[in-house]
Amino acid sequence: MRTLLVIGIGTGNPEHMTVQAINALNRADIVLIPRKGEGKEALADLRREICRRYLANAGTRLVAFDLPERDEAEPSYARRVADWHAAIARTYRDLIARHTGEGGTVALLVWGDPSLYDSTLRILDRLEDMADFAFRREVIPGIASIQALAASHAMALNTVGGAVQLTTGRRLRQEGFPDNADSAVVLLDGETAFETLPQADYDIFWGAYLGAPDEITLAGPLHQVAGRIVEARLAARQRKGWIMDTYLLRRRR
Amino acid sequence: MRTLLVIGIGTGNPEHMTVQAINALNRADIVLIPRKGEGKEALADLRREICRRYLANAGTRLVAFDLPERDEAEPSYARRVADWHAAIARTYRDLIARHTGEGGTVALLVWGDPSLYDSTLRILDRLEDMADFAFRREVIPGIASIQALAASHAMALNTVGGAVQLTTGRRLRQEGFPDNADSAVVLLDGETAFETLPQADYDIFWGAYLGAPDEITLAGPLHQVAGRIVEARLAARQRKGWIMDTYLLRRRR
Repeated sequence: MRTLLVIGIGTGNPEHMTVQAINALNRADIVLIPRKGEGKEALADLRREICRRYLANAGTRLVAFDLPERDEAEPSYARRVADWHAAIARTYRDLIARHTGEGGTVALLVWGDPSLYDSTLRILDRLEDMADFAFRREVIPGIASIQALAASHAMALNTVGGAVQLTTGRRLRQEGFPDNADSAVVLLDGETAFETLPQADYDIFWGAYLGAPDEITLAGPLHQVAGRIVEARLAARQRKGWIMDTYLLRRRR
Repeated sequence: MRTLLVIGIGTGNPEHMTVQAINALNRADIVLIPRKGEGKEALADLRREICRRYLANAGTRLVAFDLPERDEAEPSYARRVADWHAAIARTYRDLIARHTGEGGTVALLVWGDPSLYDSTLRILDRLEDMADFAFRREVIPGIASIQALAASHAMALNTVGGAVQLTTGRRLRQEGFPDNADSAVVLLDGETAFETLPQADYDIFWGAYLGAPDEITLAGPLHQVAGRIVEARLAARQRKGWIMDTYLLRRRR
């Protein structure tokens, strides 16, 4: 049986790596490094930098590959994602079969934490259905963007005894601020869903490229800083070609 | 100005320490180690083990102290917690003033992640109000119990595009399962609030002592495993004298 190590690597700071993650990396026969397809060369660079710093096992090989791209012509969102995940699972299957034998160990380096809004574990479910080899999976937690956000703002995500809703930009846009929580962390917001809220009611704590040297953070009453965040996002995206950001909204008392 | 490092140390596995946390620890002049008061000698042991493994700076001193205890005779919960936090802040103030000079660096080692249901940052707000020295705070994120839970179950906390509510045992008991999320992670549940839910509607993924060698996990449809979890909790608490557990509930389709 093969072992697939799903290793959380944190959010852009190589020092987010845990000792557990470093040890897992060094148990791998191969490390799969997606070369592109995410539109973010920076992610591939981070994975390579992590291997350069922490990989001491001379027997471990880095296997670079092209991640399949989503078929944006497919009109159904669910179908588009399902097809994409299936294509990635086929790619994993072929790479693992070609580069490892029975009992081999494969490392997948996941941005942030594998448990939060990441598709790797779901792709492994598909791999399990289609692969002609058996494997066990082992998950190593990593620092997630929401933790890097809270650390940079030196704040807790929750109020005393309060609930925190982790949600997506799409849901915030459709459903508004959750009525049963006073804190909402918004992930996967490709745009600025916070602009759809009644601005006087919330504070926002925002961050982009969290953990990386070019991290940007802004915070304050939403009606005061929303415009500055929109501008900062736009300028950063133009400068770097991509943006990765997240934010916490908190109900004002 | 002094520097207070609030360092997340993970949940019971010393290998949860990040490289960033190890480097921060080694910048400290003193590390404050609560000797007791949490009812959990294991926590003090973990902090000492982390210093033994990772502290290479011969100039760093460990300062053990007795954490103030909560006054359980105080009838108001809010007052009880506020008084307790103020007492801890006074303890920090006295220790820091006694053991460090201007420009000194102090490390506080926080179980899990400082951003999730931990009071350290709030206690530092109080310290800021009462101390006659100025300080800056720096927060180092750590692996939280909810991430260790997800890793042990090799699962994501969220469904595809779904929301996740982080909540407390008390809130779950009072409000039931959140109607705007299909996953709820329950923290700070000293008892078994999941027993108050309609059991046929949910799956549960439970874990205790997550990350530690004696970790226990159980998962399944709530109506099938609730009783086993109650028993396992009781047996573990009797055996060790304390328990620390958390769980994810997911709406069944």
